[in-house]
Amino acid sequence: MKYRMYDLIEKKKHKIPLTEDEIREMITAYTAGDIPDYQMSAFLMAVWFQGMTDEELSCLTLAMAASGEELSLAQIPGTKLDKHSTGGVGDKTTLIVAPVLAALQVPTAKMSGRGLGFTGGTVDKLESIPGLRSELSEEEFLRILNRVGFVDAAQTKELAPADKLLYALRDVTATVDSIPLIASSIMSKKLAAGADRIVLDVKCGSGAFMSELSSAKELAGQMIRIGEMTGRAVTAVISDMNQPLGRAVGNALEVQEAVEVLKGGGEPRLVELSVRIAVEMLQMSDQARDSREAAVEAVTEVMQNGSALDRFRAYVKEAGGDPSALDRVGVETAFRKEIRAPRAGYLTACNTGEVGLVSVMLGAGRSRKDEAIDPEAGILVKKKLGESVSEGEVLAELFTNREGVLEDAEDRFLRAYSIDAEPPEDTPIIYDILRSR
Amino acid sequence: MKYRMYDLIEKKKHKIPLTEDEIREMITAYTAGDIPDYQMSAFLMAVWFQGMTDEELSCLTLAMAASGEELSLAQIPGTKLDKHSTGGVGDKTTLIVAPVLAALQVPTAKMSGRGLGFTGGTVDKLESIPGLRSELSEEEFLRILNRVGFVDAAQTKELAPADKLLYALRDVTATVDSIPLIASSIMSKKLAAGADRIVLDVKCGSGAFMSELSSAKELAGQMIRIGEMTGRAVTAVISDMNQPLGRAVGNALEVQEAVEVLKGGGEPRLVELSVRIAVEMLQMSDQARDSREAAVEAVTEVMQNGSALDRFRAYVKEAGGDPSALDRVGVETAFRKEIRAPRAGYLTACNTGEVGLVSVMLGAGRSRKDEAIDPEAGILVKKKLGESVSEGEVLAELFTNREGVLEDAEDRFLRAYSIDAEPPEDTPIIYDILRSR
Repeated sequence: MKYRMYDLIEKKKHKIPLTEDEIREMITAYTAGDIPDYQMSAFLMAVWFQGMTDEELSCLTLAMAASGEELSLAQIPGTKLDKHSTGGVGDKTTLIVAPVLAALQVPTAKMSGRGLGFTGGTVDKLESIPGLRSELSEEEFLRILNRVGFVDAAQTKELAPADKLLYALRDVTATVDSIPLIASSIMSKKLAAGADRIVLDVKCGSGAFMSELSSAKELAGQMIRIGEMTGRAVTAVISDMNQPLGRAVGNALEVQEAVEVLKGGGEPRLVELSVRIAVEMLQMSDQARDSREAAVEAVTEVMQNGSALDRFRAYVKEAGGDPSALDRVGVETAFRKEIRAPRAGYLTACNTGEVGLVSVMLGAGRSRKDEAIDPEAGILVKKKLGESVSEGEVLAELFTNREGVLEDAEDRFLRAYSIDAEPPEDTPIIYDILRSR
Repeated sequence: MKYRMYDLIEKKKHKIPLTEDEIREMITAYTAGDIPDYQMSAFLMAVWFQGMTDEELSCLTLAMAASGEELSLAQIPGTKLDKHSTGGVGDKTTLIVAPVLAALQVPTAKMSGRGLGFTGGTVDKLESIPGLRSELSEEEFLRILNRVGFVDAAQTKELAPADKLLYALRDVTATVDSIPLIASSIMSKKLAAGADRIVLDVKCGSGAFMSELSSAKELAGQMIRIGEMTGRAVTAVISDMNQPLGRAVGNALEVQEAVEVLKGGGEPRLVELSVRIAVEMLQMSDQARDSREAAVEAVTEVMQNGSALDRFRAYVKEAGGDPSALDRVGVETAFRKEIRAPRAGYLTACNTGEVGLVSVMLGAGRSRKDEAIDPEAGILVKKKLGESVSEGEVLAELFTNREGVLEDAEDRFLRAYSIDAEPPEDTPIIYDILRSR
């Protein structure tokens, strides 16, 4: 490249903003393998300490988005809406929101990732449905979108390869937890996927990358500013991840819980968040209602009258799956265990990341990228924070096909929860909603 | 190693001190090639921002010193004294101080580096003497030391290879200018070379790595504390490098200037610094005089009575060189040029690093490690800062065997100096002297 990487590191060390050209050249050269990892990791650590300006951030995001193929959503008419969650435990909102929007004639075409570590992935959840394929050709992708009104497939084309390379390097150099790097990583993939308007579900709490509300707001703000500077409308819903979302953690169990909500039932906090995200997306779409109240009504209606669930069934069928799976209740694993409260009191706190890792122990998630997932494994949470429990009352139920893990899993689950004499303060499911100017 | 490098980076990011064991394991593993450069460079950048505690520093220094062979100075009886300069332009004090101490029965056995960039190296200066060899076997090294009373050879054994590896990585990741990393790098080599007591000449100014007095003091303080924690007495002389030291820059020219001082003459600031360093070393040695005044007198005496110069002659002879080179005055290069003042005024400031780079252009130094040096090339500075000059008066003379470089060199030299109507404030040659408790 025409710049010396050394000089760019030196600038960042001293918080001198890099120019658009410098950032673009750096990303192009790094993607081509022309900048050694040891220089890039020094640069990333300097970013960890010094941050990035809004201008640097949008340049970085655009450069990463342009580093590989971009998805030809251009073939899809109208405004392209996308939804992204920063990742949490038990987050099945996409499985609810996409069918709801399809029922309201708002098409959503989504590329989703797979789960890793304590966070799950939508593609894994969908693939718990027997026969359903998530690795789709472009032709299949578009056909399903047209026939069903939504599609949520595994990423096939290599979107934003620069981000993939940078993320892998950050992962081993302790530079993942940099808000500007997280913001540009997420937004580069959204831009490369061709989204025009984006609703972000920024998770905040003990089961999210951002444990503090201030950090979650900063991340949301940075992503909104990237959107502003690159011409994309962005709405960020900052939602609670201080306990698993809903009651189910695990792939088949989460599909069942999503179906429950699409039938008009479900755990209230999960319903509240799903409706809110669907409303935000509806109001950003070409089908926006005249008022927020009208939008809430429209969303609630398709959840009550079965038309959203009908879209989910149609999707399963088109993607090669067995629609009768949506009528199942419960899983059949070789081993299961009820976890009982060791003493009476109120559930006051939850280390949600630990609960996610318990689900990984049971086989519901991956600790490494190449691991297989057991679609049946998982956790059903019976008590939410703030509820009172009596001694011996069932807190949760664990499901696994792995022999000999239940005892450790129970122990770890119990250590993740605090039971105290006094009830905790109520925590809202939605902390804040931030929008582009 | 038994730690994850990721965790050590994470600790340093958050300014949590690493343990002695963690540092030792990290250095051992890195030297063995078991830690990738991209992790070490992220760690080094985190150190650039967060610094190191005194405990971390001494652990790092000891670990680097122990990373390779250590020099068998054990064979030499008595206290081992060493002198180190942090590097500057025209610094020939070692060529003066070592013969002086030899004449006072204080043996000094020194391993010196070669010059790189704007700084020169003592070994290069010595090798400008025809026939003189600096690459010595251990046997030759000890023989010369015993017969002459000092030896200053090129580093043969690989001292502190961890430092060498780390320095090479810092050099390409913009992490050279970290005071704790500089301090541990210097001290690790001194420790590996077996020194018991060390005098450091910490250069400060426009021709030094530390341009600010506060940084130079911090570096000196950190090296003294490393000395305290590893049982080595350290004295740091903080000296001025806001103009070339003395009048000569270039290898043969600097040997001639050293001889001039050893004959009792020489430029006053160079003489003052040389005497001061020699006195500090004498007072740290087993031959320490009862008072500082007596030490100054002893040092001055061997410079006046020719016994120090006699030691230099003996050294040249023993090292295979031609002692008559010490009687030469001037160099015979194919090209030379007098630089004249473009206007009348006072010399008020000098970009000394630039003057060093002019000497590299002329052939007196290296811009890359593998470049050859022209022993004759160099600069004679005729005017020092604070002196008044009339228009057209000679400021300096350039000497080179390279065709076509004189014009650019002259231009660059003139741009390095400021000539103003008012004289500058006086700058002392020695800013401060710091000592171990």
